[in-house]
Amino acid sequence: MTTDPVDLTARLVRCPSVTPEDAGALDVLDRALSAAGFATTRVDRGGIRNLYARWGEGRQGRRFGFNGHTDVVPVGDPADWTHPPFGAEIHDGWLYGRGAVDMKSGVAAFAAAAIDFVTDTPPDGAVILAITGDEEGDARDGTRALLDWMDQAGERMDVCLVGEPTCPERMGEMIKIGRRGSLSAFVTATGVQGHAAYPHLAANPLPVLVRLLDRLASTPLDDGTEHFDPSTLAITTVDVGNPATNVIPATARATVNIRYNDAHSGASLTAWLDEQARAASRGTDVALSVTVRNSGESFVTPPGPFSDLVAQAVRAETGATPVLSTSGGTSDARFVRKHCPVVEFGLVGQRMHAVDERVPVADVHALKAVYTRILQGYLA
Amino acid sequence: MTTDPVDLTARLVRCPSVTPEDAGALDVLDRALSAAGFATTRVDRGGIRNLYARWGEGRQGRRFGFNGHTDVVPVGDPADWTHPPFGAEIHDGWLYGRGAVDMKSGVAAFAAAAIDFVTDTPPDGAVILAITGDEEGDARDGTRALLDWMDQAGERMDVCLVGEPTCPERMGEMIKIGRRGSLSAFVTATGVQGHAAYPHLAANPLPVLVRLLDRLASTPLDDGTEHFDPSTLAITTVDVGNPATNVIPATARATVNIRYNDAHSGASLTAWLDEQARAASRGTDVALSVTVRNSGESFVTPPGPFSDLVAQAVRAETGATPVLSTSGGTSDARFVRKHCPVVEFGLVGQRMHAVDERVPVADVHALKAVYTRILQGYLA
Repeated sequence: MTTDPVDLTARLVRCPSVTPEDAGALDVLDRALSAAGFATTRVDRGGIRNLYARWGEGRQGRRFGFNGHTDVVPVGDPADWTHPPFGAEIHDGWLYGRGAVDMKSGVAAFAAAAIDFVTDTPPDGAVILAITGDEEGDARDGTRALLDWMDQAGERMDVCLVGEPTCPERMGEMIKIGRRGSLSAFVTATGVQGHAAYPHLAANPLPVLVRLLDRLASTPLDDGTEHFDPSTLAITTVDVGNPATNVIPATARATVNIRYNDAHSGASLTAWLDEQARAASRGTDVALSVTVRNSGESFVTPPGPFSDLVAQAVRAETGATPVLSTSGGTSDARFVRKHCPVVEFGLVGQRMHAVDERVPVADVHALKAVYTRILQGYLA
Repeated sequence: MTTDPVDLTARLVRCPSVTPEDAGALDVLDRALSAAGFATTRVDRGGIRNLYARWGEGRQGRRFGFNGHTDVVPVGDPADWTHPPFGAEIHDGWLYGRGAVDMKSGVAAFAAAAIDFVTDTPPDGAVILAITGDEEGDARDGTRALLDWMDQAGERMDVCLVGEPTCPERMGEMIKIGRRGSLSAFVTATGVQGHAAYPHLAANPLPVLVRLLDRLASTPLDDGTEHFDPSTLAITTVDVGNPATNVIPATARATVNIRYNDAHSGASLTAWLDEQARAASRGTDVALSVTVRNSGESFVTPPGPFSDLVAQAVRAETGATPVLSTSGGTSDARFVRKHCPVVEFGLVGQRMHAVDERVPVADVHALKAVYTRILQGYLA
């Protein structure tokens, strides 16, 4: 068979599946996979639609998994687009549309590769797709719901490939073997309101807060580890909302976001932030409280047979030697990694989430070819 | 004569003269002064009503001036008041109403003292009242308009008493012989927006801003001077308004308010702030800009015959020995001081601007007595 990944991408892009809407995207995928002999199960939870598809009922070999999503971020003002954001129009070798990069093309490329592979050279193993409609949203009822259901149903993947865009600029240049953790800390400084002319009668929360923030921002968290760049801390907002120049405010708030490597954990960073807050407020009449929301611990699948296999397939099809990286933001790999070793490879991510999101048609074909080689290498 | 300062206060309080409204307050005063032989002139400017009143046409002696205001701050929710805010009701020895403390009673006490004084013992000099309807507002067209008009008309005061509340807790405990300057600096830090996961691709304005603010807040401006407490700096707000924890903002803003003594000037502080901003942003990709609004330079009328006279009058009538202070916020004395030596004495200020603003009736009588002694001492 020669399933066209660009046609499948286009059919997915034409479904306006802005999180949490599915808009028929998973139906498109379900029909294509079912026709090729995949057993499909809808794993819906909390108003989110998810699709579990497995080929290889009863076969004894290894189970290859793929994780991706069909939901997309909002398009903004459609008038800003030169082509309709859900039109999937092709011009000058580019397919335009929301999700063209992130990541309907990745899902389509893998589905097309899997359909052709199981049809043409049925392996003694299983091919599993765990596709969610909630990656761009809260991600509460998406990949987590699929993994919860798999646990209960006794379904397993031995490895999992996540098809998110991973390449910074050129196709094939980066594979992700892990991700940094991400943690946000919400700091509230509480003092006593007063008149700016009588600061000794007030307790201004701001000097204590800015001292804490200066220390946090100027303290290196680490120098990087074997597989990770140094952790980073960004102050993302400070807010008081006091319009009166003659008033000392009672309360000030700030948020910091930490992207951390395997030298830290959510718990160790929470303890560090608490200690820094205690130190900054010591001897003052200002109370600092820190509330932490940990979006995901750092994780890494150390280089080994699975990443070697993916790297070889990338090199063979694109000519590029991919870097094994743990950089960038988060993805649903942070959930999958609790289930099995996980590696991520996909398109060039530059245009994701942007106006006129678009993908080179040639890259979609190349991605299908890479995925085909990976399936062959793992299951043949 | 025995003009009743409490009755005059009550008549003023019953005019709801919330800045910029006059609501008839200056008419009440104009009629009372005119009846006693004062020549009155309306000096209106920019929609603000002001009153200049002078007794002593053609007399050669010294000219005693008084400055005050009849406008008041808003009452808030009248339902929060136990007595109507413009009712001037008297209960248990207190007169209730907006402006009872700040400063219709001060104006009434001086007017009553002046009327009785010029009627009973006409001096060989002049008594001048420069009363504005714009002290609580922008103060652009209030006392400044009166002083501008006086310059053009050749009208002079040799000294001026400002009747603002000056006593922190007990009647008679404080005279103000100057005021600190007040300056607000609006700091804007501009960097480059980006994703919190890729801080090296962004230029976060916040680390630079919090470093500047920490330095400003922790650098003592001075140790105080002969007549002044140490200058103070208060960070009054920091604002970004970025709700997204994964976004590094492009811009952050902060305001600091400095109350400064005669070791500084608006110009010297502006230069210091600029230098601190340059130092904090040096070597970064963040631009810091500082816009300064100087509300008034510091000033002092060094202790001398005029403050001695006021202090003796206070001591004689209240039994308290007043401190000569330069503490607290600003007042229209900052304008008057360019015209002639200025000293401030008035009521206990605790309840000004508050719900249920009220003044002890006895204090209004005591204030009239103090003002009478000052007039006698200066002109008799």
